[in-house]
Amino acid sequence: MTNSTLIKLSEQLTFGGKQIRFKHSSKTLNCEMQFSVFLPEQAQTEKVPALYWLSGLTCTDENFSSKAGAQRVAAQLGIALIMPDTSPRGDGVADDENAAYDFGLGAGFYVNATAEPYAKHYQMYDYIVTELPQLLEAQLPLSNKRAISGHSMGGHGALVIGLRNPERYSSISAFSPICNPINCAWGIKAFTGYLGDNKQQWQQYDASLLLAATEKPLPILVDQGTADTFWPDQLNTDSLITAAKQHNTDIEIRYQQGYDHSYYFIASFIEQHLRFHAKYLT
Amino acid sequence: MTNSTLIKLSEQLTFGGKQIRFKHSSKTLNCEMQFSVFLPEQAQTEKVPALYWLSGLTCTDENFSSKAGAQRVAAQLGIALIMPDTSPRGDGVADDENAAYDFGLGAGFYVNATAEPYAKHYQMYDYIVTELPQLLEAQLPLSNKRAISGHSMGGHGALVIGLRNPERYSSISAFSPICNPINCAWGIKAFTGYLGDNKQQWQQYDASLLLAATEKPLPILVDQGTADTFWPDQLNTDSLITAAKQHNTDIEIRYQQGYDHSYYFIASFIEQHLRFHAKYLT
Repeated sequence: MTNSTLIKLSEQLTFGGKQIRFKHSSKTLNCEMQFSVFLPEQAQTEKVPALYWLSGLTCTDENFSSKAGAQRVAAQLGIALIMPDTSPRGDGVADDENAAYDFGLGAGFYVNATAEPYAKHYQMYDYIVTELPQLLEAQLPLSNKRAISGHSMGGHGALVIGLRNPERYSSISAFSPICNPINCAWGIKAFTGYLGDNKQQWQQYDASLLLAATEKPLPILVDQGTADTFWPDQLNTDSLITAAKQHNTDIEIRYQQGYDHSYYFIASFIEQHLRFHAKYLT
Repeated sequence: MTNSTLIKLSEQLTFGGKQIRFKHSSKTLNCEMQFSVFLPEQAQTEKVPALYWLSGLTCTDENFSSKAGAQRVAAQLGIALIMPDTSPRGDGVADDENAAYDFGLGAGFYVNATAEPYAKHYQMYDYIVTELPQLLEAQLPLSNKRAISGHSMGGHGALVIGLRNPERYSSISAFSPICNPINCAWGIKAFTGYLGDNKQQWQQYDASLLLAATEKPLPILVDQGTADTFWPDQLNTDSLITAAKQHNTDIEIRYQQGYDHSYYFIASFIEQHLRFHAKYLT
């Protein structure tokens, strides 16, 4: 497979590194996609490891770029940040029939859709797992060391993708993840729409089921705020905690008193997440 | 004068402190205003000093709140952050006749307007210097120790307000400030509109003239990126440098190679600015 060409849309200096926005034609998603990358100064002289950040419902590549304050720590640690969009985009891409915020555009849920009319474009799982790393490691100064993290829908994506591909990532983290999507309203709506009614198919995208079924999971760090208005109903953190109890690998799932679902929460703890990943990335 | 009541619109925990958005009825601006405050954890037990941050053209109180990453350092130093809006707001407030980005709403330039139809509402200088500190120090756990900083139009505001009120602030800093507004297109447009054609009146709002005429200025730190598309034409940093040369107080005006006009630049150096202010605030 030939990689598509990366077209640079903007480049800005921050913390001595480069914050870059690219677009490219995605073969997996059958549309043009934008994403952002932070390359620390170290990438000028060596290949650096990368943290993939999967954003939540309604987000693009720009929320984490501008609000999390992650570049400061990534610059210190010599880690690149890869910030993809949250769904396929463009006029030809099917959206929710009511343009809802929790399905369709901005809400790809990091699955490979099998149901129509979504299967043609909504292949976010393969895009994140395969196409994007292949493209970036061929064209940017990145090693093949990867970690994965995300927020809310993206926390679900990070857990699912990391647990299913332990050979491709060295560690997983998440903020406020949707831990048990087969048992919450967001997940049921998304999986019904993208995967159809066969609930057997849903299980491969449920972090709590996957963690319970994994023999020796990757190191995991999860933070969940107790003032989060989506917790516990949509997030079901306790399901993940139950699944984690059977393992004696490096898994920490923490409740943070008084924090909500916003980037003010993420900014407060992103340094700890980056330093957690750095232990395994380098 | 009776202080207006602060109405809390939202409160979020970040870095152990509180990020709060308020609205109130401003007597100075004759309209309802919103602003944001970060109160570090230390404010639960003592009165803390405050850094006022004045934002640039088109901004509200939310740009610095969400993008600069300042709360992390303010939490460490025990400094409150006060983030006002950039102009009066509301249906009754006169705007630029073409709704331009550089005059009218979102572009108050931190002056007291004397020309019609702007004089009724555009009194941002008095709002920042007098009304807001009086209101906040009466109703929040703030001491009367203050520093002032800002970006672009807000860097101009911080320099002008700090230089003219040395008894009210302990230090001044700015990112990419409009240093010599009487000699750039943005400044000439704004001062003509808000102050009229009498250029004598303009001089009290020109940081380079004020710095040249000040006997013993406050400590000042300025950062200017060399990849800033508004530099030098709108910003005239060299005028401020020339005015600074005659002083032997703590004034540092730095060019930062390759940085632009954005919050990626501010985020990269905000920690140094906060630590600079902390030397004089505490």
